[in-house]
Amino acid sequence: MALEIDSILGKWLGLNTTSSHTAVASTNLFVALLCACIIVGHLLEENRWINESITALSIGLCTGVVILLSTGGRSSHLLVFSEELFFIYLLPPIIFNAGFQVKKKHFFRNFMTIMLFGAIGTLISFGIISLGAIHFFQKMNIGSLDIADYLAIGAIFSATDSVCTLQVLNQDETPLLYSLVFGEGVVNDATSVVLFNAIQSFDLSHIGSSIALQFVGSFFYLFITSTLLGVLTGLVSAYIIKRLYFGRHSTDREVALMILMAYFSYMLAELFSLSAILTVFFCGIVMSHYTWHNVTESSRVTTKHAFATLSFVAEIFIFLYVGMDALDIEKWRVISNSPGKSIGVSSILLALVLVGRAAFVFPLSFLSNLTKKSSFEKVNIKQQFTIWWAGLMRGAVSMALAYNQFTRSGHTQLRGNAMMITSTITVVLFSTVVFGLMTKPLIRILLPSSKHISGSMISSEPSTPKSLTTSLLSNGQDPEADPAGDQNVYRPTSLRMLLCTPSHTVHHYWRKFDNSFMRPVFGGRGFVPFVPGSPTEQDVLQWPPQSE
Amino acid sequence: MALEIDSILGKWLGLNTTSSHTAVASTNLFVALLCACIIVGHLLEENRWINESITALSIGLCTGVVILLSTGGRSSHLLVFSEELFFIYLLPPIIFNAGFQVKKKHFFRNFMTIMLFGAIGTLISFGIISLGAIHFFQKMNIGSLDIADYLAIGAIFSATDSVCTLQVLNQDETPLLYSLVFGEGVVNDATSVVLFNAIQSFDLSHIGSSIALQFVGSFFYLFITSTLLGVLTGLVSAYIIKRLYFGRHSTDREVALMILMAYFSYMLAELFSLSAILTVFFCGIVMSHYTWHNVTESSRVTTKHAFATLSFVAEIFIFLYVGMDALDIEKWRVISNSPGKSIGVSSILLALVLVGRAAFVFPLSFLSNLTKKSSFEKVNIKQQFTIWWAGLMRGAVSMALAYNQFTRSGHTQLRGNAMMITSTITVVLFSTVVFGLMTKPLIRILLPSSKHISGSMISSEPSTPKSLTTSLLSNGQDPEADPAGDQNVYRPTSLRMLLCTPSHTVHHYWRKFDNSFMRPVFGGRGFVPFVPGSPTEQDVLQWPPQSE
Repeated sequence: MALEIDSILGKWLGLNTTSSHTAVASTNLFVALLCACIIVGHLLEENRWINESITALSIGLCTGVVILLSTGGRSSHLLVFSEELFFIYLLPPIIFNAGFQVKKKHFFRNFMTIMLFGAIGTLISFGIISLGAIHFFQKMNIGSLDIADYLAIGAIFSATDSVCTLQVLNQDETPLLYSLVFGEGVVNDATSVVLFNAIQSFDLSHIGSSIALQFVGSFFYLFITSTLLGVLTGLVSAYIIKRLYFGRHSTDREVALMILMAYFSYMLAELFSLSAILTVFFCGIVMSHYTWHNVTESSRVTTKHAFATLSFVAEIFIFLYVGMDALDIEKWRVISNSPGKSIGVSSILLALVLVGRAAFVFPLSFLSNLTKKSSFEKVNIKQQFTIWWAGLMRGAVSMALAYNQFTRSGHTQLRGNAMMITSTITVVLFSTVVFGLMTKPLIRILLPSSKHISGSMISSEPSTPKSLTTSLLSNGQDPEADPAGDQNVYRPTSLRMLLCTPSHTVHHYWRKFDNSFMRPVFGGRGFVPFVPGSPTEQDVLQWPPQSE
Repeated sequence: MALEIDSILGKWLGLNTTSSHTAVASTNLFVALLCACIIVGHLLEENRWINESITALSIGLCTGVVILLSTGGRSSHLLVFSEELFFIYLLPPIIFNAGFQVKKKHFFRNFMTIMLFGAIGTLISFGIISLGAIHFFQKMNIGSLDIADYLAIGAIFSATDSVCTLQVLNQDETPLLYSLVFGEGVVNDATSVVLFNAIQSFDLSHIGSSIALQFVGSFFYLFITSTLLGVLTGLVSAYIIKRLYFGRHSTDREVALMILMAYFSYMLAELFSLSAILTVFFCGIVMSHYTWHNVTESSRVTTKHAFATLSFVAEIFIFLYVGMDALDIEKWRVISNSPGKSIGVSSILLALVLVGRAAFVFPLSFLSNLTKKSSFEKVNIKQQFTIWWAGLMRGAVSMALAYNQFTRSGHTQLRGNAMMITSTITVVLFSTVVFGLMTKPLIRILLPSSKHISGSMISSEPSTPKSLTTSLLSNGQDPEADPAGDQNVYRPTSLRMLLCTPSHTVHHYWRKFDNSFMRPVFGGRGFVPFVPGSPTEQDVLQWPPQSE
């Protein structure tokens, strides 16, 4: 049974082969490598240096070397890096899951700081890297790069990859830091992609104040409309599932509908040329706040783990892919006659990344601290250093943007373009592997896990197992269940209320609004419709056969 | 953010457009239609005529009409039917889930009958349809069809689609009938695809006894090796997950590994040119028997529902796709000058399908009944009629095979080929809609749900809710938990044992072998490793944050 599967696989994965058998073999090898990454990642879980990203990258690199040797230096990869695959299939589950699993309270309590770092910070970093690139590269004679290319370099190297840091930071021990790094990462992704697209579409031959204003305007327009679209799609999904109560017949319909609606929000944003990353992120937040609570117990377990698994596989896929593609011989051949210059360019870019990030993390932290009254809420210097470090890694977004700017259909012949691609690969590999290896030990030194250094106001009570009865009886207002396992929720006591009233006022009013207007319509935490034979927790353990 | 997503979407989905915006719009519409199918399917759940397949098909047809009108008759579909998409992405989850959720005991107890129907029956049906097509069509002057085309027609119209019937049959009320129809459906799929590939690869210009022998030999070789490969992959996954006990760190790794290994088995079978359908089906059976019991409680819930959801979405996707494609104007234009002949061909094919199926269901049931001693195990005439009816629908497999045989890259110009494609569409639509509409009422008449007509030896005790304690305490031999919700398991009592010893001997020895040799190595039901902090059912309801 080999019904011409070569063409589809070839087209879809961008396989550099035309033979059906080779395409199937490549897919097999790739799936086997994914399995290997998961197993090795599990075995190295306790290791104090390695993390999942480095494992996948290393396995990718090793496979690349083996392929390179076995094909006699002709090719190093099974697949050509395609930004389409990345943006259409791999990124959406990662970002959606990020929104779905984020601890919403921490995220929104630090919303202004996150926006400061994510949007303004990225713009500062973009400016410094662009100006630095113009300053250094124009003297180096590295090929024909115009102003759009330099600005694109700024956007490409402003896109952080905090996956590695988030694997090390603990959401319970350091909630403030976690939400800052996490939130910044998402907003940063969105900002750099929006920036990048703006650069590609704007006419940059004559930059004036009107263009700059237009740029800022379109940025805010994109930000707000994308967010609203995500919120809207999430609310629609919550409303539909609450009204129809699918669990009555089948949990599969609920799960399917949640996945489809999430993807729908992403594609809808693409359709309206909005920032799909932001849309799907906010769709995830709304879905975890409302929709997730309207479905059956089994669907909750399934969606929580299914989304996490999808995101997990997509991340490994990306690092494996980047690792394998890094040795692509064609690009290195173009720049092989000037290895010194190539190392120079990569070093300058790395230095610009370090400086560009330092230039906003420390000043913006200072500004953010000024607005905080309580010393608990301020970001101390060790935490500032951690935030700086957390965003030094460059990853798949940078790669995807670089390929988009500097190649045409996976190939590059111009010397300047080849130089930029290889430098991006070098920076991604170096920052992920070298900085990545140092992250675990560094965080252990900066933030000893026994103490709760977190500046958050939230008491970190141990998550005591709750009896089943409690979970069943708590009908209206059970603040414990949450896909993010958000156990340490905000529970105002008179003393705390007194201490932190100003910063929680908005949140307080939101809670009131949510309880009086939103939850009656969209369900959410504690929503338990009475339906005869409605699934209880017995379902989860027993699974009587369900009609589908 | 619209990073050239047109090319990938266009290539992947075979979109008949080159504009990025249109491609994104098509995807949006398609996702929205999928959501609509789920919602409408839910609302019509209690309806006595309609089922999910008919809903999706109708929505697809209506959309086709709207597109046809809005494009002024130029095009009716968003996507061109591609058998690659079908065989690589849509079929594997459906078949895997079939194996994963099947009640293994019923399946294996009726294994010989299932094989008789699925393999020998399909061959009989294939022979009758091929001979009938040669007999009738050669006189009708419908274009150039050679011997390979006639044999292909036989294979195409031997592929049943029992989805619709399975939606109506109840696995608990009529386990014998369900397992027969279900098992036959899977073996039938495999048989027709193997047949079809054999026809395409063998030199059919001079048919002799040696070719026929070779054909039979290659069929059995494929059948046995494919099954073994599936079993092997399943066992490897069970062994890895049991040995490493991933749940210690993360349930996501377990879920990811199960999904990847399942897909790996499918692609591995493709690599060795085996029957991937059979491989992935047996991989699903082994995974549900061993692997599924080695993972954490959360992973069990997740995999059970995630696989079911994937399969569910893939099924809806296929019917929507077929519905939309049915109105493709290009094919109908070719045969528009001879509508009478087209109707004639379709009617003949439908009649051949009816006769071909009757020609093996009733004789083979008679044969099968001869080997059964107890009257409970015999298939009575009403059940025979239900089995006959259950396999009359033709679906996506037929469509995919027809496109593979009679078109080149989605287009067909030859008159004979166009006639065959439109006839296939007609037969698929007619059988799914007309026969499908009659299935629910028919089964209600033939098999009143209050009585347990089932010939199975199993007592159909109501699935009483089991206390959590029981489920936790039963360590070694808990025969209740099963992804198929297999509550009515075989529990030998002295009287029953006496009655049905002969037919259960094999199963008895298998149980002994399984308990002594297989389970110690591969885990399976009741496997509970002691790991500190190992997830219990509290996990499922509470979800303390897990490190990933």
